[in-house]
Amino acid sequence: MKKVLVLHGPNLNLLGEREPQVYGSLTLEAINQRLIEAGREWNLEVGCFQSNHEGELIEALHTARKTVEGVVFNPAGYTHTSVALRDAVAAISIPVIEVHLSNPAAREDFRQVSLLAPVCRGSIAGFGWRSYWLGLLALASLLAE
Amino acid sequence: MKKVLVLHGPNLNLLGEREPQVYGSLTLEAINQRLIEAGREWNLEVGCFQSNHEGELIEALHTARKTVEGVVFNPAGYTHTSVALRDAVAAISIPVIEVHLSNPAAREDFRQVSLLAPVCRGSIAGFGWRSYWLGLLALASLLAE
Amino acid sequence: MKKVLVLHGPNLNLLGEREPQVYGSLTLEAINQRLIEAGREWNLEVGCFQSNHEGELIEALHTARKTVEGVVFNPAGYTHTSVALRDAVAAISIPVIEVHLSNPAAREDFRQVSLLAPVCRGSIAGFGWRSYWLGLLALASLLAE
Amino acid sequence: MKKVLVLHGPNLNLLGEREPQVYGSLTLEAINQRLIEAGREWNLEVGCFQSNHEGELIEALHTARKTVEGVVFNPAGYTHTSVALRDAVAAISIPVIEVHLSNPAAREDFRQVSLLAPVCRGSIAGFGWRSYWLGLLALASLLAE
Amino acid sequence: MKKVLVLHGPNLNLLGEREPQVYGSLTLEAINQRLIEAGREWNLEVGCFQSNHEGELIEALHTARKTVEGVVFNPAGYTHTSVALRDAVAAISIPVIEVHLSNPAAREDFRQVSLLAPVCRGSIAGFGWRSYWLGLLALASLLAE
Amino acid sequence: MKKVLVLHGPNLNLLGEREPQVYGSLTLEAINQRLIEAGREWNLEVGCFQSNHEGELIEALHTARKTVEGVVFNPAGYTHTSVALRDAVAAISIPVIEVHLSNPAAREDFRQVSLLAPVCRGSIAGFGWRSYWLGLLALASLLAE
Amino acid sequence: MKKVLVLHGPNLNLLGEREPQVYGSLTLEAINQRLIEAGREWNLEVGCFQSNHEGELIEALHTARKTVEGVVFNPAGYTHTSVALRDAVAAISIPVIEVHLSNPAAREDFRQVSLLAPVCRGSIAGFGWRSYWLGLLALASLLAE
Amino acid sequence: MKKVLVLHGPNLNLLGEREPQVYGSLTLEAINQRLIEAGREWNLEVGCFQSNHEGELIEALHTARKTVEGVVFNPAGYTHTSVALRDAVAAISIPVIEVHLSNPAAREDFRQVSLLAPVCRGSIAGFGWRSYWLGLLALASLLAE
Amino acid sequence: MKKVLVLHGPNLNLLGEREPQVYGSLTLEAINQRLIEAGREWNLEVGCFQSNHEGELIEALHTARKTVEGVVFNPAGYTHTSVALRDAVAAISIPVIEVHLSNPAAREDFRQVSLLAPVCRGSIAGFGWRSYWLGLLALASLLAE
Amino acid sequence: MKKVLVLHGPNLNLLGEREPQVYGSLTLEAINQRLIEAGREWNLEVGCFQSNHEGELIEALHTARKTVEGVVFNPAGYTHTSVALRDAVAAISIPVIEVHLSNPAAREDFRQVSLLAPVCRGSIAGFGWRSYWLGLLALASLLAE
Amino acid sequence: MKKVLVLHGPNLNLLGEREPQVYGSLTLEAINQRLIEAGREWNLEVGCFQSNHEGELIEALHTARKTVEGVVFNPAGYTHTSVALRDAVAAISIPVIEVHLSNPAAREDFRQVSLLAPVCRGSIAGFGWRSYWLGLLALASLLAE
Amino acid sequence: MKKVLVLHGPNLNLLGEREPQVYGSLTLEAINQRLIEAGREWNLEVGCFQSNHEGELIEALHTARKTVEGVVFNPAGYTHTSVALRDAVAAISIPVIEVHLSNPAAREDFRQVSLLAPVCRGSIAGFGWRSYWLGLLALASLLAE
Repeated sequence: MKKVLVLHGPNLNLLGEREPQVYGSLTLEAINQRLIEAGREWNLEVGCFQSNHEGELIEALHTARKTVEGVVFNPAGYTHTSVALRDAVAAISIPVIEVHLSNPAAREDFRQVSLLAPVCRGSIAGFGWRSYWLGLLALASLLAE
Repeated sequence: MKKVLVLHGPNLNLLGEREPQVYGSLTLEAINQRLIEAGREWNLEVGCFQSNHEGELIEALHTARKTVEGVVFNPAGYTHTSVALRDAVAAISIPVIEVHLSNPAAREDFRQVSLLAPVCRGSIAGFGWRSYWLGLLALASLLAE
Repeated sequence: MKKVLVLHGPNLNLLGEREPQVYGSLTLEAINQRLIEAGREWNLEVGCFQSNHEGELIEALHTARKTVEGVVFNPAGYTHTSVALRDAVAAISIPVIEVHLSNPAAREDFRQVSLLAPVCRGSIAGFGWRSYWLGLLALASLLAE
Repeated sequence: MKKVLVLHGPNLNLLGEREPQVYGSLTLEAINQRLIEAGREWNLEVGCFQSNHEGELIEALHTARKTVEGVVFNPAGYTHTSVALRDAVAAISIPVIEVHLSNPAAREDFRQVSLLAPVCRGSIAGFGWRSYWLGLLALASLLAE
Repeated sequence: MKKVLVLHGPNLNLLGEREPQVYGSLTLEAINQRLIEAGREWNLEVGCFQSNHEGELIEALHTARKTVEGVVFNPAGYTHTSVALRDAVAAISIPVIEVHLSNPAAREDFRQVSLLAPVCRGSIAGFGWRSYWLGLLALASLLAE
Repeated sequence: MKKVLVLHGPNLNLLGEREPQVYGSLTLEAINQRLIEAGREWNLEVGCFQSNHEGELIEALHTARKTVEGVVFNPAGYTHTSVALRDAVAAISIPVIEVHLSNPAAREDFRQVSLLAPVCRGSIAGFGWRSYWLGLLALASLLAE
Repeated sequence: MKKVLVLHGPNLNLLGEREPQVYGSLTLEAINQRLIEAGREWNLEVGCFQSNHEGELIEALHTARKTVEGVVFNPAGYTHTSVALRDAVAAISIPVIEVHLSNPAAREDFRQVSLLAPVCRGSIAGFGWRSYWLGLLALASLLAE
Repeated sequence: MKKVLVLHGPNLNLLGEREPQVYGSLTLEAINQRLIEAGREWNLEVGCFQSNHEGELIEALHTARKTVEGVVFNPAGYTHTSVALRDAVAAISIPVIEVHLSNPAAREDFRQVSLLAPVCRGSIAGFGWRSYWLGLLALASLLAE
Repeated sequence: MKKVLVLHGPNLNLLGEREPQVYGSLTLEAINQRLIEAGREWNLEVGCFQSNHEGELIEALHTARKTVEGVVFNPAGYTHTSVALRDAVAAISIPVIEVHLSNPAAREDFRQVSLLAPVCRGSIAGFGWRSYWLGLLALASLLAE
Repeated sequence: MKKVLVLHGPNLNLLGEREPQVYGSLTLEAINQRLIEAGREWNLEVGCFQSNHEGELIEALHTARKTVEGVVFNPAGYTHTSVALRDAVAAISIPVIEVHLSNPAAREDFRQVSLLAPVCRGSIAGFGWRSYWLGLLALASLLAE
Repeated sequence: MKKVLVLHGPNLNLLGEREPQVYGSLTLEAINQRLIEAGREWNLEVGCFQSNHEGELIEALHTARKTVEGVVFNPAGYTHTSVALRDAVAAISIPVIEVHLSNPAAREDFRQVSLLAPVCRGSIAGFGWRSYWLGLLALASLLAE
Repeated sequence: MKKVLVLHGPNLNLLGEREPQVYGSLTLEAINQRLIEAGREWNLEVGCFQSNHEGELIEALHTARKTVEGVVFNPAGYTHTSVALRDAVAAISIPVIEVHLSNPAAREDFRQVSLLAPVCRGSIAGFGWRSYWLGLLALASLLAE
């Protein structure tokens, strides 16, 4: 079993409670559970971590580069503003896959540009919790190559 | 008595010490004291919190949505750069009122746009510590409706 | 009692008739009445004037500098386009406070920049008729200092 | 078995021949074959169509709305320039999923904005032929809900 | 001996491990050691601190204004995005010198503007760990005047 | 007979005298006469008003919403600069049709954007006095529906 | 009887089927029929052509310049992106009138600029199928002069 | 003696009272007097008019084209925002000379572009009341040619 | 004899008929004839193809990479808008030379940027039909190296 | 008699020869002669210098600050591009007056911004050689104050 | 034999020495020699001049207008910044042809716009020293017409 | 001893005379003297050259590449406008270090971008004459590696 990290950015701890008609009614806990199970099928040992702190997310990426083989990352609100997170992704050599629950392209102007996308391996957006699930599968495929 | 939160963003812990001719000579402590007293008159129980950490401010807003009925928020330097704080404000259903000590419109270009204003109930700027005081009164009015 | 002016810009004569769900159901007359009463409590003699003409608003400000001690001004549609009104505010030494019924930051792009804000003492937006009421109180505080 | 369409935009007929180190060594034919097989497992009957003509792609989408239940679409070079294709996607009610072989975010400036993304259900980029495969799986999930 | 602070921003804890061909093979620890030694020659007592947290960097600057006589600061990824750090530098009266290992002007567009440069005393970029060394010497000169 | 208003903006009183090779040799009076006659055929009672004053045009629209069933409006030079006129059009519920004698799209850059078009029912440009005539017919059709 | 062409751009073949609440419930066929009839009254022999292919629209314009005396053209999605269609309109000396069913000015940013408008004789937008009808009448007037 | 008009835009009635250190201590009345006298020497009969109303300024220009042989115009705050005044200047065939008391190029960004300059014969800025005086002399020279 | 392709983009079939004072009075047929003859002198077998269809031009380039040794291409109106044609040029390894009859730099703003130029070997503009002739000679030189 | 310098920028040596319908038929020599004579009447000793070299113009300004009391400067093509000339004007304390033969505001976009205007005392444009003459008179007035 | 000038801008004296893999290994001297020889065949007497000084290039163009019948000009780094050179080209009536060794369109953003191209007769880029050779031939053709 | 060049751009000959409160009271001569002495300590033979001519600075860099081992360059006003100087720096293989007396980031907008920084080895700004001194030391370090 290969170890991977699912990393959740700011405000995602509110999932299932905040605007369920937009973000779905699954809590973060429930999503993590589904990903751990799916990972098991795909021979991945999935660890999960959420933080609202840019610095903690940076450090989670630093740690990841020594402890796991890939990351599925939903940077949420930091997607559009954090050069420091971008540098952290660029600094580690394992693949990082950017995922989003909703489709940023269909939202406000300031969400049109992702500072992280250019340094991620690929990106998946718009499928609700399935975005994570597809990202995990993409990672499984990459690691199996 | 209704509970409300007065939330102070980065560098505001220096109030009264830093450039008093610009920001006034009241310390944050003294402002908080005045707001607690004013709140009492308006039937509000005022709690105060300051942080220089974006993540802590996000979490203070998360907590607020379950513990208080409204927030008076001076996001200071994060006003213009934090999509994550904007998402936090948008995620909670209680009213949030943006306040600023000085008038950002009369300052540098990068202070002309507030990422938070569009998701706040209203905004008040340019009256020194009175901006908080007016924001608290606005909140009292909204909660009394 | 100190004299102050409440100045209303274009289209505000329609208040209470136009889109009441957006702008509230109070007529301009009723708002003026409430402000006159509130002013009395705060030791202010409140005069009110509305015009749809940029030139008349300029001249109201010119007159104000000799006859009142402060102005609460809702420039409405001229907020974003009138350099001439900005020059008028800058030319008079009494404090002018900008107020808006709704929150321009949450509206169209062309409403994001206020030409007047940089020369006003402070600004208040988003509280319906209460924006005037808070502006009047801010003015009372300034004049009492 | 539900019918779906895999739609390929301009220049994709060269796949496997053009710059294999960038786009992989699989021909379009081989990719289609894999997608047809994968679809079969996921209970999808996959049809494939490629065109270099904007008008033919528009018409393929028109036809699709009556004949299939979803589309996986790689608009390639038309992604950034075709309002007409965007209107075609918006005009049909079945889900359309945007996929890209490489990561446009890591390429030229003019590839940073997708005119189609805002009207697509979701988007997937950067995983080579696996982008199609993940898109097909996403579609299978959506149709199974 | 005058006390000064060398302050390192996000991701710099990876120095020596990450892309040594770009950032050199010296670890942060080794650089700090060299700076402490160089400082000793120049009659400076050098303290060093690194953080990936914007809030901790802000607070390090707050503390610095009471405990040291100057700061050499590499804000790394926060250079281009943090108004809050800019406000912190502007709020303290001791000299702050901005340093960068590489030359941001030769990198991506979003690295072309430094929010901090206008409030720093001076800036030095492009000399690897020598940027710190030159910054320290510049500080020694300023303090000796 | 339904009442409608034809409203002419600034400088249009010069029609027929100013640059006849561009704007035609018909005076405003003559155009109004033709429109009154055409209106009669289409069962419309046409009133006409011209003003060079933004404020008077705003007030003509305010009055119109109580006295007529639709407006054909050539805002001329105010097209590109008047938020206040836009707000006036948006505030009244009767249909307003924007017309222009010449084709602004073929003129200077600052004429490329119409602040009024988004709140008008439709717009017609480039047919000389026939633009009014077509606008009146469009209005007749709308009111007949 | 003078011959004229009514030219329909991409996606207009879906009229009456796609989003009828927006675009009306008339099919393209029905609109063409009404235009042919209206044309007959105005002494015009109306031919109609629709294509989703930019190249076919260009060639229809090329043919038109030798076979008809004017064109009513709804370029739809190509309005904002086709320099080639603009060149085709500019290359033919007969009048071309731009029409739009809805009001592009009230839609997305990328629909604010028409590449074709500057080379068309005039433009009409926002009146549903009546936009064609008014365009045809405008053409009849021009040809009768 | 040739008749000419000196036309003053908004807020200029405050001259001599407002910020005399910037605009000089001469009242508008005194400036007009000096211009009338200077005009007499140069064989010009100088009339003067000031208005804060855009519409009145437009109409003053309309009248001018029949009653005087040239205009010296200080459009003040309308310089940067009035397309309607620009159209009025363009509509009259007599020479109009733009003057400014101060140097707009040394002021705020929104004062960098003059909508009127391109249609004026020439422009003079930065010489206080002497700008009018030089403008009048320039006009005298033009009319003498 | 080496085979090369001369490829003509949209509207060029009108050459000699459209605005001869701008584009010259030679028909496309005549130009092709001259190029075939010139090619013969330079040991090139010249084939010619014109299309108004973006898709056909893409496919002509696809075919060219297997059948000829170089292309002289006038993309006309597609120069500024076609990412798909750019991708086609980039996908083939034979040299492509961009030519223009007139000088796009001296025309409208939207003609200032060529999407194709960065992937072409070189470009020649402004010499009428001689642009093709010089492009062909440039190609002959390149192939002779 | 006070000494002043009339300084001419690049290409002005061609005056009278180049496009006389635009720039007038006076040669630079003849203009200089007229200015010397006019200066004599106004008690100014006028020196003249022309250069096509940015460096020579800079040095002429350096010399001027010790040898004359004011400068009338037509920077011509360097107006819009030379930061070095701007710095030279800013570095000298004598008044510099910017003049232009034609009206840059009515020309190309790149001529809309003057880098020199903000550091000049005033500017005069559009009066042909009379621009120099008026500038000289403005200087005489300034020096006489 | 007709006389023509080949004019080389800044840094071109380093040709053959600087980055030969980019600019070729021919020295400027050798290129000039080839052009003189080629010119002789085409009945042109070719003179050559190189300067790093903007002013000298301006003056070379001034001289050219009286001594030669056309110019082939590589403005190099001045291409993108020199309004003064543009004015010089515009001021002379003989044809000037812009040439570049490499393809500026494939280089940095600031090289995307040529200030000179709009006033040159045509331009040729990307063919190394052959760009000059083709430019000379183009000139020969123009002069032979 | 290694030879290096200290190169001063336009207006720097005025150092010590112009605005000493901004630029310090040291003359250029005195600064050069100090640098020569400091160089001696660091085993560098320092040559100094100042020019106000862009072309002379270009040529000084050309010469430098054959005669010295590194350059400390203050391009002053040419920093922001000279592509030709950038090309000269890029063309020579010895290290060039950009220095500025003051901090351009704290000045006007047009000083925010340095065309030279991306091709320099590093840059130092804001330390007055010490910027040269630090640059020289940086060069000594580089050359000693």
